[in-house]
Amino acid sequence: MAKDRINDQCLEEDQVAGNGLLDRRLFLKKGLQFGAISTLASSTALASTNSETKFEPAHPPWMHKPGKPFSIYGKPSEFEDDVVRFPTQNEMVPGNGVSWTPLHLMEGTITPNGLHYERHHNGVPQIDPKKHRLLIHGLVKKDLTFSIDDLLRYPMQSKICFIECGGNSNAGWNKQPSQAEAGYFNGLASCSEWTGVPLSVLLDEVGLRKKAKWLVAEGADAFAMQMSIPIEKALDDAFLALYQNGERIRPENGYPLRLIVPGWEGVLNVKWLRRLKITNRPVMARNETSRYTELQPSGKARMFTFPIEAKSLITSPSAHMVLKEPSLYQITGLAWTGRGKISKVQVSADGGDTWAEAELQEPVLDRSFTRFRMPWHWNGKPAVLKSRAIDETGYVQPERTELVKQRGRKGFFHYNAITNWHIDSDGFVSHVYDKKDNETTDSDISIDSGWD
Amino acid sequence: MAKDRINDQCLEEDQVAGNGLLDRRLFLKKGLQFGAISTLASSTALASTNSETKFEPAHPPWMHKPGKPFSIYGKPSEFEDDVVRFPTQNEMVPGNGVSWTPLHLMEGTITPNGLHYERHHNGVPQIDPKKHRLLIHGLVKKDLTFSIDDLLRYPMQSKICFIECGGNSNAGWNKQPSQAEAGYFNGLASCSEWTGVPLSVLLDEVGLRKKAKWLVAEGADAFAMQMSIPIEKALDDAFLALYQNGERIRPENGYPLRLIVPGWEGVLNVKWLRRLKITNRPVMARNETSRYTELQPSGKARMFTFPIEAKSLITSPSAHMVLKEPSLYQITGLAWTGRGKISKVQVSADGGDTWAEAELQEPVLDRSFTRFRMPWHWNGKPAVLKSRAIDETGYVQPERTELVKQRGRKGFFHYNAITNWHIDSDGFVSHVYDKKDNETTDSDISIDSGWD
Repeated sequence: MAKDRINDQCLEEDQVAGNGLLDRRLFLKKGLQFGAISTLASSTALASTNSETKFEPAHPPWMHKPGKPFSIYGKPSEFEDDVVRFPTQNEMVPGNGVSWTPLHLMEGTITPNGLHYERHHNGVPQIDPKKHRLLIHGLVKKDLTFSIDDLLRYPMQSKICFIECGGNSNAGWNKQPSQAEAGYFNGLASCSEWTGVPLSVLLDEVGLRKKAKWLVAEGADAFAMQMSIPIEKALDDAFLALYQNGERIRPENGYPLRLIVPGWEGVLNVKWLRRLKITNRPVMARNETSRYTELQPSGKARMFTFPIEAKSLITSPSAHMVLKEPSLYQITGLAWTGRGKISKVQVSADGGDTWAEAELQEPVLDRSFTRFRMPWHWNGKPAVLKSRAIDETGYVQPERTELVKQRGRKGFFHYNAITNWHIDSDGFVSHVYDKKDNETTDSDISIDSGWD
Repeated sequence: MAKDRINDQCLEEDQVAGNGLLDRRLFLKKGLQFGAISTLASSTALASTNSETKFEPAHPPWMHKPGKPFSIYGKPSEFEDDVVRFPTQNEMVPGNGVSWTPLHLMEGTITPNGLHYERHHNGVPQIDPKKHRLLIHGLVKKDLTFSIDDLLRYPMQSKICFIECGGNSNAGWNKQPSQAEAGYFNGLASCSEWTGVPLSVLLDEVGLRKKAKWLVAEGADAFAMQMSIPIEKALDDAFLALYQNGERIRPENGYPLRLIVPGWEGVLNVKWLRRLKITNRPVMARNETSRYTELQPSGKARMFTFPIEAKSLITSPSAHMVLKEPSLYQITGLAWTGRGKISKVQVSADGGDTWAEAELQEPVLDRSFTRFRMPWHWNGKPAVLKSRAIDETGYVQPERTELVKQRGRKGFFHYNAITNWHIDSDGFVSHVYDKKDNETTDSDISIDSGWD
């Protein structure tokens, strides 16, 4: 066992910020002498200095008999049955609630369809695609109705993009830091390759009248979700998705048709889309007046705050994880912004005193999850990890203190502050707020306050 | 119904090659007057010229009651139960065969994990990740053994890339054109975002000896698959994947550990990886001597033909589909190359007499599926569609005649010729060979001849 052999001299050369943050390119260099820094593996019991070793490892039990047969549709390993969405529901209303994507157990940027987060207001309708219709009407020259078969013949486009619920991370408004796993606190955000028909093509076909300023999208669930979207966005990059990650959209994500509004809050990406009514004003539906809006300290409410502001989150290490021993670790997480591309993610291992730039997974895509990674040598002492996203507009993800100062703590929605992970001397990771974070309000906001 | 209203004048202006191929940018322009070309939708029965129509569509049955509850791991709609892998097996050997990805029923570029193609030689081992080990030994300075927990602490990288079986599309060598659906004839190719540890990092840690020239990778299935890979490729971009599309790799794709060799034939991407032996020569295993090699007309065999040559396939329209009526359609498909990026895909609607360039889905990624699309006006007469991929090295996907001339028809592997889809006057699509295609051999090659 050579696990804690650390070459301090080498580490010192590669340090780029306080408390052990190492050059983000360290692992990507060829001939990097990783072994000189840290060996995570075990030398084998039968290790030999003979370069032509005859050593053959023993066959494990699963090499002794034929494996399982082919399957027409695969499933995860039974050993991964903890990698699931976590539902939290309003028990007073059937099918009202969310299920969280387990971001803390995932890697890369794509969310597999089975783990994409859910937010339903009245359950998941089981729609027969042969009977589903989309109506476009209102301030148009000609009302049109489209079947799914009609839509499948149209020109398509694909875009990898994230969707984030406006209520994601809302426990961040609470007085005490949530101790849920990172995904079960921030996982109302997922990222897929969506494919469908540009909305501009269909709006061209119905012909917009001059007064057309808004579009009211309606879902075919029992809640009949309605949301208003400015016509400029509809004509710019919105599209009607039929496919998610190569296959038809799953029922819980809007089968057979979902409106995708890249970079704008989740609720606008209306699932089970059945109607687009063109209007000259927003419909002022419940979910754009009493919900997905925020009462501010001034007493006025923020409304129609459509684009998701830049946000990042370290997914590993994160709450509930334990670092086994002082050694080399990878700090990794996700960043995203509704305003374009992430330009930079900075990481701190000393609670924000010093910062260094993380490696971004290429290609960095517009309005998409961006994976960041950074090598870190944990010296065994308490540490606080932070990540901070900066997008191409120059927007910098705020500290919580700053966000609370701007918005107060009665907002419930659109929480995008920096998350701190504290590592204690036993390696146990927990969620903490900054010490300077003023606790100016008198009570916690219940997580149920955002339900309908 | 206004379905067959075609504005011929507009079409003529946009035509870019024979038999109705239209400008690839036609659908991407803003204000494109799509309606002037073709209306695929129905005007509603209740259509109104009143701009402030009060028309509200009737509620379908699924809006009358709450929908289904949240799920911890999602599944496709029950209406999509035909979108599955298609297994074909050697009945003489348990778990020996393939299952095909239904490319003809899919869109975009990502293959969802449940539909990634399978090629097993002795079934799918059910591996306990706690008990799995990777040994790196042979011409190294120090043998090392890695547990999955060890590997999870290493620096990771992600790459979206395709994997294609060397035996994909092998029915193309047959005397008569296969009439299987496009995916069940060409779908031993899939594309995922893979995440794992760069092999160069681990090879640095074990320390390569001077004579190290090859690496023999071994899987932990009952077949104990062994494949030889040149050390230069291993050090360049190979990596050990733990994740596929964000979640841990599925059992049938190598859980818990798969070697990814970007752009090289599928069999080298060894699943259930348990051993890397560094050697000075290839191991000359069965799958690199009698299989995945081709006997050529000269009597010599091609071996170690690692990189996948450029290939493309129209997935829609394709065999078994029916065009309902003369109208506007989207021609779409996939292109890929093991030598870098696809630079261009050309499409023909007149059997290869004239060609025009298709739109490529952005971003075009290295060694990844590239989606191409092109608008087409089918005039109701018989037509032959073709697609031709050109990669950044300048390699042009060959016609079948040319490929057969070069390689003969006893190769069985590495078939990458252009596929022709014939549309008859009833709109029925079938697979045809070119008339000039010489049928020089006397019998069909059985699809079983490639099984072990």
